[in-house]
Amino acid sequence: MVRQGNIDNPPKTPLVPGFECCGIVESVAENTQGFEIGDRVMAFLNYNAWAEVVCTPVDFVYKMPDDMTFTEAAAFSLNFVAAYMMLFEVASLREEMSVLVHSAGGAVGQAVAQLCSTVPNVTVFGIASCFKHTSIKDSVTHIFDRNTDYIQEVKKICPDGVDIVLDCLCGENTGKSLSLLKPLGTYILYGASNMVTGETKSFFSFAKSWWQVEKVNPIKLYEENKVIAGFSLLNLLFKQGGCNLVKSAMDKLLSLYEQKKIRPVVDSLWALEEVKEAMQRIHDRGNIGKLILDVEKSPTPLMANDSTETSEAGEEEEEPEGDNDSKERMPFIH
Amino acid sequence: MVRQGNIDNPPKTPLVPGFECCGIVESVAENTQGFEIGDRVMAFLNYNAWAEVVCTPVDFVYKMPDDMTFTEAAAFSLNFVAAYMMLFEVASLREEMSVLVHSAGGAVGQAVAQLCSTVPNVTVFGIASCFKHTSIKDSVTHIFDRNTDYIQEVKKICPDGVDIVLDCLCGENTGKSLSLLKPLGTYILYGASNMVTGETKSFFSFAKSWWQVEKVNPIKLYEENKVIAGFSLLNLLFKQGGCNLVKSAMDKLLSLYEQKKIRPVVDSLWALEEVKEAMQRIHDRGNIGKLILDVEKSPTPLMANDSTETSEAGEEEEEPEGDNDSKERMPFIH
Repeated sequence: MVRQGNIDNPPKTPLVPGFECCGIVESVAENTQGFEIGDRVMAFLNYNAWAEVVCTPVDFVYKMPDDMTFTEAAAFSLNFVAAYMMLFEVASLREEMSVLVHSAGGAVGQAVAQLCSTVPNVTVFGIASCFKHTSIKDSVTHIFDRNTDYIQEVKKICPDGVDIVLDCLCGENTGKSLSLLKPLGTYILYGASNMVTGETKSFFSFAKSWWQVEKVNPIKLYEENKVIAGFSLLNLLFKQGGCNLVKSAMDKLLSLYEQKKIRPVVDSLWALEEVKEAMQRIHDRGNIGKLILDVEKSPTPLMANDSTETSEAGEEEEEPEGDNDSKERMPFIH
Repeated sequence: MVRQGNIDNPPKTPLVPGFECCGIVESVAENTQGFEIGDRVMAFLNYNAWAEVVCTPVDFVYKMPDDMTFTEAAAFSLNFVAAYMMLFEVASLREEMSVLVHSAGGAVGQAVAQLCSTVPNVTVFGIASCFKHTSIKDSVTHIFDRNTDYIQEVKKICPDGVDIVLDCLCGENTGKSLSLLKPLGTYILYGASNMVTGETKSFFSFAKSWWQVEKVNPIKLYEENKVIAGFSLLNLLFKQGGCNLVKSAMDKLLSLYEQKKIRPVVDSLWALEEVKEAMQRIHDRGNIGKLILDVEKSPTPLMANDSTETSEAGEEEEEPEGDNDSKERMPFIH
């Protein structure tokens, strides 16, 4: 989305994209507490993560668990933190609830599905393009094609509606998704800034979506007992001083990782030189989970997942890039 | 509000108003579980509570604790359940949070203040008309006049904003209140159908407010990481099958009552014949807490609270009526 210019106030070019990375600490500022040279870490950055060396405030850096690989670490932070905060901070996911997630095959969608499985008896409805169903059907309770009338299908299973709907910025589903909510249910519109849209869909930009998204009358929410929320992790981190909230979510997520309850889904690894092909794969909606940019890799894609093929009108997908297994330098994800 | 006709689809007249009451069970249907003739109970009704005898489904009936008086019971259910569900179900009130409540002198506002005091270190900002400040200042942390620039005053104390804003249907504060929210904060628009407006304010109706209330763009919520919710207890109970959710809230509230952590605030008791004067008192925004209609009382108001005087532009107030101390009949509130 940054590359496409589909954001408000895009930074001036030339710029280095990327908001998350992992790697090894090369140096620390004076008086830095808690980190030493040589520590294996994950970090958020406000741009510049697709680089061989990065610098970021200590508030955005987290130690990697000993048994986490760089490939996993590169795919961990942004998606799991976003999924966790939406499910447990914005909504209050509890036992027996139901969750509908758009873009179930994306990296946030897969993180949502895994986090839902940590709570007993949660029903997950995944919406995804047909060609992803085989790969992701085991991660959700029910799966529907986004091009079918999934609203009716979900209502057949849950006549009262669902408790939580997670929808990435797509500009057309707000009303439909709101209609699926139970009383006291929560609709969350989220979007990592790294969302891109397939060229096979009609052109979509953030500015356009602002006008297309149906505005909501608070009195309608009052009459229907519904909750609508927006969630932008990058804004929370870099514009709204939310690093302590995020740190607390990361602590809980690392504990879930260590209990082997969650595991990042990696689509494929790419060399920095292959960034164009990696972006194309996301554009074509071919990926299941994260694409990682590995600064030490030589150009030949290693598919972590051979399940899907290219272009078809599909979901809004993340554009997750990162890098992996750098032994000497701080690698960078996004 | 019902009396004023300011609701959607008002029922046909003649009608008996009132949505809650307390009293003694006179008879039960065959196979009714859990209640016996003679039980002291509180109940919700979909109209008809201002009567000497009422009939309501068992799902809407709750046993009164032994040490609860009928006066307290008449003022308990609607306000505490609404306040509880907003604070703990819609939002997730936790330690150290801050809450701003409009109409802090109203019955829901007073219930909100009491429930906030059950959670450690919660800061409560109350907005109320000046003439109520003396009576309610001890129930909140800070109090502001609704006619002053309270937004700036609150921001002086909480520069980052507040976690929860509770606003009853007033049609003018949505944007102001949203601007006061912290990232991940929740704005809740609520309204018991019993809200009335003072004649001293410009005329306001529900239909009018529908158009006046500022519509919210979900993308703005996304950019600002904010949550907006609507809450209507009556719709939840009578249109949306929420009796189990309400039962669960009542169980927790009765436990808090028994621990003496909450206590309903009663403004005054009135005979059924005095309903006109009681309504006028609410219209004039004179009340702090609930007005109770007592079917056994003879006409002469007994002020439970002599703190306030009449007419002044003020908050949207509840119109809570009920009855009290009926020894033989099921009495009815509001």
